[in-house]
Amino acid sequence: MTTLPSSLPKLSDPDVKRTYGVDCSIGATAPEEFEVVRARDRDDVVEVMRFAAATGTPVVPQGARTGLNGACVPGEGAIVLNTEALRGIELIDPVDGIAVAGPGIVTDEFKKVVRAEGMFYPPDPASSATSTLGGNVATNAGGLCCVKYGVTADYIRGLEVVLPGGEVVNTGRRTAKSSAGLDLTGLFLASEGTLGVITQVVTKLIPAPDDALTALATFSDLAAAAQAIVALRRDPNPPCLLEFLDAPSIEAVQALADYGFPTGCEAALLVQADRPGHVAEDTQRYAGVMESFGADEIAVADDAMEADALLAGRRALNTALEAKGPNLIEDMCVPIRQLPTIVLQGREIGARHGLQVSMSGHGGDGNLHPSIFFDPTSADSTAAAHAAFSDMVDLTLRLGGTISGEHGIGTFKAPYLRRQVGQAGLERMLAIRAVFDPQGLMNPGKTYTYPAL
Amino acid sequence: MTTLPSSLPKLSDPDVKRTYGVDCSIGATAPEEFEVVRARDRDDVVEVMRFAAATGTPVVPQGARTGLNGACVPGEGAIVLNTEALRGIELIDPVDGIAVAGPGIVTDEFKKVVRAEGMFYPPDPASSATSTLGGNVATNAGGLCCVKYGVTADYIRGLEVVLPGGEVVNTGRRTAKSSAGLDLTGLFLASEGTLGVITQVVTKLIPAPDDALTALATFSDLAAAAQAIVALRRDPNPPCLLEFLDAPSIEAVQALADYGFPTGCEAALLVQADRPGHVAEDTQRYAGVMESFGADEIAVADDAMEADALLAGRRALNTALEAKGPNLIEDMCVPIRQLPTIVLQGREIGARHGLQVSMSGHGGDGNLHPSIFFDPTSADSTAAAHAAFSDMVDLTLRLGGTISGEHGIGTFKAPYLRRQVGQAGLERMLAIRAVFDPQGLMNPGKTYTYPAL
Repeated sequence: MTTLPSSLPKLSDPDVKRTYGVDCSIGATAPEEFEVVRARDRDDVVEVMRFAAATGTPVVPQGARTGLNGACVPGEGAIVLNTEALRGIELIDPVDGIAVAGPGIVTDEFKKVVRAEGMFYPPDPASSATSTLGGNVATNAGGLCCVKYGVTADYIRGLEVVLPGGEVVNTGRRTAKSSAGLDLTGLFLASEGTLGVITQVVTKLIPAPDDALTALATFSDLAAAAQAIVALRRDPNPPCLLEFLDAPSIEAVQALADYGFPTGCEAALLVQADRPGHVAEDTQRYAGVMESFGADEIAVADDAMEADALLAGRRALNTALEAKGPNLIEDMCVPIRQLPTIVLQGREIGARHGLQVSMSGHGGDGNLHPSIFFDPTSADSTAAAHAAFSDMVDLTLRLGGTISGEHGIGTFKAPYLRRQVGQAGLERMLAIRAVFDPQGLMNPGKTYTYPAL
Repeated sequence: MTTLPSSLPKLSDPDVKRTYGVDCSIGATAPEEFEVVRARDRDDVVEVMRFAAATGTPVVPQGARTGLNGACVPGEGAIVLNTEALRGIELIDPVDGIAVAGPGIVTDEFKKVVRAEGMFYPPDPASSATSTLGGNVATNAGGLCCVKYGVTADYIRGLEVVLPGGEVVNTGRRTAKSSAGLDLTGLFLASEGTLGVITQVVTKLIPAPDDALTALATFSDLAAAAQAIVALRRDPNPPCLLEFLDAPSIEAVQALADYGFPTGCEAALLVQADRPGHVAEDTQRYAGVMESFGADEIAVADDAMEADALLAGRRALNTALEAKGPNLIEDMCVPIRQLPTIVLQGREIGARHGLQVSMSGHGGDGNLHPSIFFDPTSADSTAAAHAAFSDMVDLTLRLGGTISGEHGIGTFKAPYLRRQVGQAGLERMLAIRAVFDPQGLMNPGKTYTYPAL
């Protein structure tokens, strides 16, 4: 590939460089030849984009590489344009309820700084301890808070973006409202680096809620747990967290350590309240709802430490699933009432392909993360996992759902996107991309730019 | 113009037809030659779009014609495609918190039906008694609720749209979350009919709040009122309504009838609380905040009827301003702290051009509706009003604001849009339009498609 200008801070150590060639998706491998530029500022981003346009070199924007679908994994000959160093906070304004920050700031750090001003930035993807704000925007990340607070897109007011060729544009607004032409900001949400490079983010902030308390309930009947979710969703003051674990997930967690789940339970629900002045009352009421739907065991936290302890099993889930073995972590979102159907039929799909499937996640959103366990060293098992996933895509779409609630499409799910958005949708997305990136250099081969489409 | 197919339900009475040739903007005039099709269903919309593409005829999508910027006023030879008859509600699902409805349903009717299911669709533009859901989407309408609940865009999950040429596409989702390619739904928010015709809307619903109570306060000092707004915005449980009236607005209201405002006050604030279980407590606290910032007179409602009565002056405002005389109603939104600056400098701009200016609106959002009073029968006065508006655009942008908080751009503000979004922004918007509408037939000459751009 063409040599990068020496003015750009490129990584030279091959071992270090290789760590920038993968994300957290299973089987991700770095290409043979690629460059990594860790931009120090917007000027570096502009210079990379100019160089890329002049030389026809693909550019892969990148944050902390916590993605699960390969969206920021470079192809051969690409430049990885990492923006982790653009992490400054320019403004926190509690009156207008906005913050202006660099894309490289770590999500939890941003949340913490904002909280110190009495404000709250809700999005909390599972990776928030290491993921970046810019990466969250590029995937429209979700998290445990979404059942009450929504997703990243609900908190983004405007962006500064460097477009292919190096032009810098500001989209959106800093004000509470604006109705002034087409919404260019929204296009960058979930765009996975296919349109440009985000160099600044204007977020919405809201007043901080109270510290949350937790209720945990286990059920010997999956349908009863699903009914409890429906009832909790209808509460006039619904939970700020409503997580679901199925039997295989609970077994995996208990196999890791004793988190107190009884044997033989079919489902567990974890529920939190954070409504100012009503936390204990709401938590007790949620516990009552779960009891009325036949929960076997219920634990209710009395203080923040207990609340945290009750979430420990949920927090250990990803580690527990990894310990159980290699698995495809998926991200289907369906209408709430379809939860028991996707859990049971998802399990059947696994069985049909000779694979174990666990189903857990953000039950209150209908957003589950199926894990399909397989043996990546066996071609047959790998093929079976992909076939099971394909069946699960069809099931999800039949139930009125989406193939990604919050992880994005990346490379892994790109072949399936057309089934959801249709040829017409894909063609419009590609044509919009051409508006911003006529050379097709931004993260080619990902999401809707997957070549086989 | 080419004759419409006889299968289409076009209006023939010229007097009736003419009422579809204008909206509520001052000076709107119907063209000499145009057609009006009142679509009965999606098929009619498809047929119009096919006919328009085949004959190169411009199409102007239209709801209830309550817009204030001429966005749905047809040009010569255009087809007005009115969708008021597409008003069916297909689904209200309180569990998933969604509704699916036709674009023609009147906003208040939609809110009422949804409320009967215990749910809440917040957007409440001043025109909500007559405006349509589809029109609200096309302008990204706001209202009095935005300070707590946000704008129409915050409640739209998906759309069914008929594109130029007649292709029907579904955008977005019905699920709580989705991260699956570019967000095509968002493009239609505030697109003012320039991309396609909305034939179905999937909205988000939230649990209904309590009935609101009102506190009303008057101030002899504008800066004190502005400081009270800042303090109310910082309340951990901020108001669901925070309206501002300046002295000329109060005078106009009092000239209409005695709404109880004392003479000589410089500002009035109307504040509401609707937080479940805390309405009276929050309202009293807001009253205390206003008192602590030097409010002269404060009235606090004890019940829903009083709460409504206290809002009567605000409700009468538009009538009062009309009674005062012809005026340009504007829609600037600035950062909250800039409110006193825009009020005082806006008044100075008016004085410089020999015109009276009143400033009132959604103070809690920084979204004011300046009214510039002028004599439309005088060319000089009309020119002065436009010059004053142009100065107000510059002032707004200098303060970090937007030239439209919630009304949209239409024809009247189209010449000013470039000052806000820049040439780069305009070019991208036009190129995105070409993706959907390569013939340029959708509502030509409006918003970012204004020819002089």
